[in-house]
Amino acid sequence: MLQEAIIKKSVSPLTGKEYLIPESPQDKDGIDRFVAAHPGKKVVVVQGLGFVGSVMSLVVANALTEEYAVIGIDLPVPASWWKIQSINEGLFPVVADDPKIGQFYKQAREKGNLYATFDSYAYSKANVVVVDINLDVKKLTNGNGQLEEYSVDLTPFRKAIESIGAHCKPDVLVLVETTVPPGTSGKIVKPLLEESLQKRGLPIDQLKVGHSYERVMPGPKYVDSIQNFYRVFSGVDEKSAAAAEAFLRTVIRTDEYPLTRLGNTHATEMAKVLENSYRAMNIAFMVEWSRFAEEAGVDIYEVVNAIRMRPTHKNIMLPGLGVGGYCLTKDPLLASWAKMNLFGSEDKLGQSEKGVHINDQMPYFAFQHLDSQYDGSLKGKKVLLLGVSYLNDVGDTRYTPVQGFYEQLEAAGCIITLHDPHVPYWEEKDLRVNADLKDLLKNNYDLVVITTGHRDYRNNPDLIKTLLSHKPGFIYDTIGVLSNDEIKQLATVHTVKVIGRGDL
Amino acid sequence: MLQEAIIKKSVSPLTGKEYLIPESPQDKDGIDRFVAAHPGKKVVVVQGLGFVGSVMSLVVANALTEEYAVIGIDLPVPASWWKIQSINEGLFPVVADDPKIGQFYKQAREKGNLYATFDSYAYSKANVVVVDINLDVKKLTNGNGQLEEYSVDLTPFRKAIESIGAHCKPDVLVLVETTVPPGTSGKIVKPLLEESLQKRGLPIDQLKVGHSYERVMPGPKYVDSIQNFYRVFSGVDEKSAAAAEAFLRTVIRTDEYPLTRLGNTHATEMAKVLENSYRAMNIAFMVEWSRFAEEAGVDIYEVVNAIRMRPTHKNIMLPGLGVGGYCLTKDPLLASWAKMNLFGSEDKLGQSEKGVHINDQMPYFAFQHLDSQYDGSLKGKKVLLLGVSYLNDVGDTRYTPVQGFYEQLEAAGCIITLHDPHVPYWEEKDLRVNADLKDLLKNNYDLVVITTGHRDYRNNPDLIKTLLSHKPGFIYDTIGVLSNDEIKQLATVHTVKVIGRGDL
Repeated sequence: MLQEAIIKKSVSPLTGKEYLIPESPQDKDGIDRFVAAHPGKKVVVVQGLGFVGSVMSLVVANALTEEYAVIGIDLPVPASWWKIQSINEGLFPVVADDPKIGQFYKQAREKGNLYATFDSYAYSKANVVVVDINLDVKKLTNGNGQLEEYSVDLTPFRKAIESIGAHCKPDVLVLVETTVPPGTSGKIVKPLLEESLQKRGLPIDQLKVGHSYERVMPGPKYVDSIQNFYRVFSGVDEKSAAAAEAFLRTVIRTDEYPLTRLGNTHATEMAKVLENSYRAMNIAFMVEWSRFAEEAGVDIYEVVNAIRMRPTHKNIMLPGLGVGGYCLTKDPLLASWAKMNLFGSEDKLGQSEKGVHINDQMPYFAFQHLDSQYDGSLKGKKVLLLGVSYLNDVGDTRYTPVQGFYEQLEAAGCIITLHDPHVPYWEEKDLRVNADLKDLLKNNYDLVVITTGHRDYRNNPDLIKTLLSHKPGFIYDTIGVLSNDEIKQLATVHTVKVIGRGDL
Repeated sequence: MLQEAIIKKSVSPLTGKEYLIPESPQDKDGIDRFVAAHPGKKVVVVQGLGFVGSVMSLVVANALTEEYAVIGIDLPVPASWWKIQSINEGLFPVVADDPKIGQFYKQAREKGNLYATFDSYAYSKANVVVVDINLDVKKLTNGNGQLEEYSVDLTPFRKAIESIGAHCKPDVLVLVETTVPPGTSGKIVKPLLEESLQKRGLPIDQLKVGHSYERVMPGPKYVDSIQNFYRVFSGVDEKSAAAAEAFLRTVIRTDEYPLTRLGNTHATEMAKVLENSYRAMNIAFMVEWSRFAEEAGVDIYEVVNAIRMRPTHKNIMLPGLGVGGYCLTKDPLLASWAKMNLFGSEDKLGQSEKGVHINDQMPYFAFQHLDSQYDGSLKGKKVLLLGVSYLNDVGDTRYTPVQGFYEQLEAAGCIITLHDPHVPYWEEKDLRVNADLKDLLKNNYDLVVITTGHRDYRNNPDLIKTLLSHKPGFIYDTIGVLSNDEIKQLATVHTVKVIGRGDL
């Protein structure tokens, strides 16, 4: 009984406020009241209030050429209950460097056209449902970060679609934005919704299913990455594509960022995972060249920058600690899974899977490199990690490669101090992270490791000055943020190693 | 005796003219006369009169800020003897769509500052030697185009460097432009030249060795790809780098295309092979996605074009028949070889080698796809191949992927007709190639295969019209040059297949 009560609590990490989740939550009255307050407006329900859905709901509530009544919906579970309450209470649950988030939320509050709920009854009011829930890949890795097996479980995704089908109008547009295995909208979403409508004795010929993937980037351009960016879309049939296009035109600045329509939903779904696989593979490609550069005493950063002078080679990547985030770490696997499981192919996408394997191991390679270069044992050594987020100048720790690196240091018996100006709390590890670099640097460390390319660590004379006043130690730059001059200075006192560079 | 006489003949493929190669050729008088005619001018010897060296000699003879006396040198062997004679007789041995070739040659003839020879005595006059010889990888493949083994034999390259060392001044600048295994300039060229100088009792401290790779593209911008393009350079020491820079500034338009200097010759050598490996790997990456698109009924071309809207994804490649040319087919292997053999690494560049493997097999995949889609046996079928060159709108057959595809068709018993507007003669296969498409299309073919993306095959209503008037057949577009409209039209009469597209 006690345990159940604990589970039914949802705590806001922003305010610490606790919200109790009632036994059988329902919100029919709230939804009815909200919709009644917006007569004549089309209702858009955004399913999922995560990194994409929450901000998408803001963008739709501030649509460019139409005024929508927007309902954000998520599950009545501890991870999202506080978000729902928070949105309705006046505090947006996503913290980001983008001032547009606050501005868009304020405007929506003033217009009163944004509401959050957990009750599937909301779908019954929707003209458009935008699907922004997660679809995860489960990875089974060994101790070296090596991927041994992975699985795609569509059950939660199917349930979410079924909850729409159980309530939706027969002429609803369901626009899938989730990154899905290619084939999902046509082979899973459409049949599930049709089945639900038929069970409810409703016609299926007016149903519209579209797919359009977002290219959201958390950070200072969070809102723009939805509203002011190129969009690719499609529909399972002509009327679906037309409806998807009409909707997207009202929320995205399509005059500057023209829409691209593809032939079918398989194509747009494939485009998204191909896009991310391309990037993941290009990162993986640099791994072995970084090793080669280390062996040959070459600075791979100057080599890559020289190559980037060619317009045809602008996208060549720099080496680093590894790959993080929600997309690049799994999308090649989603694609490979779909190839075999939704299209009956006998062959996986071998190279693309291999890219994920290599990227997953990068933090372990980086640790091994450190271990091999460090004179003596790492046990008991005081280590300062600079950066926890996987992304420069952004606080996003989802699948951050710093985690694998951190865990290796921990296993080696290091005493680790964390710094990140953008991550006060590292959710996945349940750890507090320090923000005051000056204060931290009052201590001496045996090792300082730069693990994220935040602006605070680049061209920071204070950081270099303070490190120079420390007792001799070991500085490991896994991102290549230190300049040649800085390396030369630091090398007068410390051992300095940079990934992808020979001895300097 | 008779056989020897035959070997000692060199025939110009341009004019058919035969040139006899004398028993012990020497050209001291010719070289002395040429140099004496240009008092006060610095002498630049360009070693190798192939695709790069011949045009490089033109660019140096038309240098921007200095007037050089330029000597092109190649071996007195059948493959190059006619080139040497031809340059001195008034006919430039390289035919290309670039009008600048003719113009630059005419200017050099008028100034009289370009001479060609075979006699190593030329090196004794050189202030600068530019090394533009080939350095090949030998591939051993099985019947399916699968690479089983490869080897790098540096013997011919070492001999060429030794021939410089046997004659050069002690303060010469030797600028290597050949794509070499990383490490070659510093670990092979420099020691070989020093050894030669020491043997000759000369000092070694004034010797300068630089490396700067060209990015030559045969075709309509042939000269510009040398003179008006970004250059990366380095030297084995400070004075070498300075000398290389001073020379490059006189021949390349560095105001518009600034030079990039890297830290050492290993770095520039690595940059070149990394650049090409990046491209080769990105082509290989698309192979399995093309298969996936075929299985899923997706048009990979529209998918890729949608992805290219993103600036970060502009370099994603389109699928095709395979990879050709002198660079992408071997450079990843040169790099991998160097990693193990010049830097003692235990690991090869596995992914980059894999890219070459996949690309080598592409024409075989394409043939298998054709064979599986073609109704009935290919034996005795009349096939028209559109395109022999590996490059659009250019006549370059070096390592063209059309060769593997052609050989498969031949092995299957097809009767093959070749068309290419840019390749009158397919040297590697010793075959005449037809240039008149209209005339060819008077015949009926069982199969028409588009194997190069020449302009003549794109948006060509005549081609479509003529094909429509043919009896039903099979059209296979391995490059994706046919538009959706063209495919729809052709499909009324023929079976149409396009690589990387599902059934249309």
